[in-house]
Amino acid sequence: MTEAVAVPVAGIEPAGDPIYATDYVKEILRQTRALDSYGMWEGKPVEKILAPYVLTKEQRRAIPVIGDPDDVLISRVKAFHNAIAVLIEKECGLMAVPFVQLTHEGFGRALIVVGKLVVMDRTLRDVHRFGFDSLSKMKSESDKYLSVALEIIGKHPDVAGM
Amino acid sequence: MTEAVAVPVAGIEPAGDPIYATDYVKEILRQTRALDSYGMWEGKPVEKILAPYVLTKEQRRAIPVIGDPDDVLISRVKAFHNAIAVLIEKECGLMAVPFVQLTHEGFGRALIVVGKLVVMDRTLRDVHRFGFDSLSKMKSESDKYLSVALEIIGKHPDVAGM
Repeated sequence: MTEAVAVPVAGIEPAGDPIYATDYVKEILRQTRALDSYGMWEGKPVEKILAPYVLTKEQRRAIPVIGDPDDVLISRVKAFHNAIAVLIEKECGLMAVPFVQLTHEGFGRALIVVGKLVVMDRTLRDVHRFGFDSLSKMKSESDKYLSVALEIIGKHPDVAGM
Repeated sequence: MTEAVAVPVAGIEPAGDPIYATDYVKEILRQTRALDSYGMWEGKPVEKILAPYVLTKEQRRAIPVIGDPDDVLISRVKAFHNAIAVLIEKECGLMAVPFVQLTHEGFGRALIVVGKLVVMDRTLRDVHRFGFDSLSKMKSESDKYLSVALEIIGKHPDVAGM
């Protein structure tokens, strides 16, 4: 008889990894659940819920970038930017509003606005392939946007409404 | 035998009205044609193409605000904000980027961004009932947004990228 072991999900950090204890991962989890309009994630473990954010380079390359990305993928792109907005809000104490506008074929733009100040402005390309090497990479990318946003707010506090 | 006369479209200014010669109406026409993905407006006269923007108060009230607004209506909401962005761009010489984000049931937000500056920020409600008493009213509402935008740019030229 073989013992039942948790099957690791390819790419993503295994259950129990310290990344799951970070505020960032808690926030992205909360955002992902908030946009779960189909109830896909009810009762699922964290590493399963967050698994779709983690893709190897090979997996990304294998995804065709034709047609419009589906709703579930778009909700992940939104959750990612919503989480950044929440982090900005926590740091600066001002409301940060995320906008994700997708045009056709996986192109688009993501904005985060604080007061009258645009604190993040990203062109999105190949949204079909949206994903990160690991949760830790995802967190560090978000941290980068956060620090740039805080720098912009620091330069123009009046426009941000401080 | 009765003579063929142009049937006037209810509410909208009749063909030949000076409003059709304004830059604003030319721009909104251009934007409406640009978003005409179904080819509805090919070969149609201007006052027919712009007629859906003009609704009497009674017509507006009669439209139910349930469910998500349809694509053709959304394209009018976008054309309206795109035209304002073009006007801003013409006045200040900087690129103005419009964002229209609709959530559910006809609620949403419209933004226009110049550099890192939000020069227009509007909450949209009851988008189903999007319409104006006349083209002239539509133009004056746009002119209002334009002047507020230019004022904001005047206050924060560095953030706008001047």
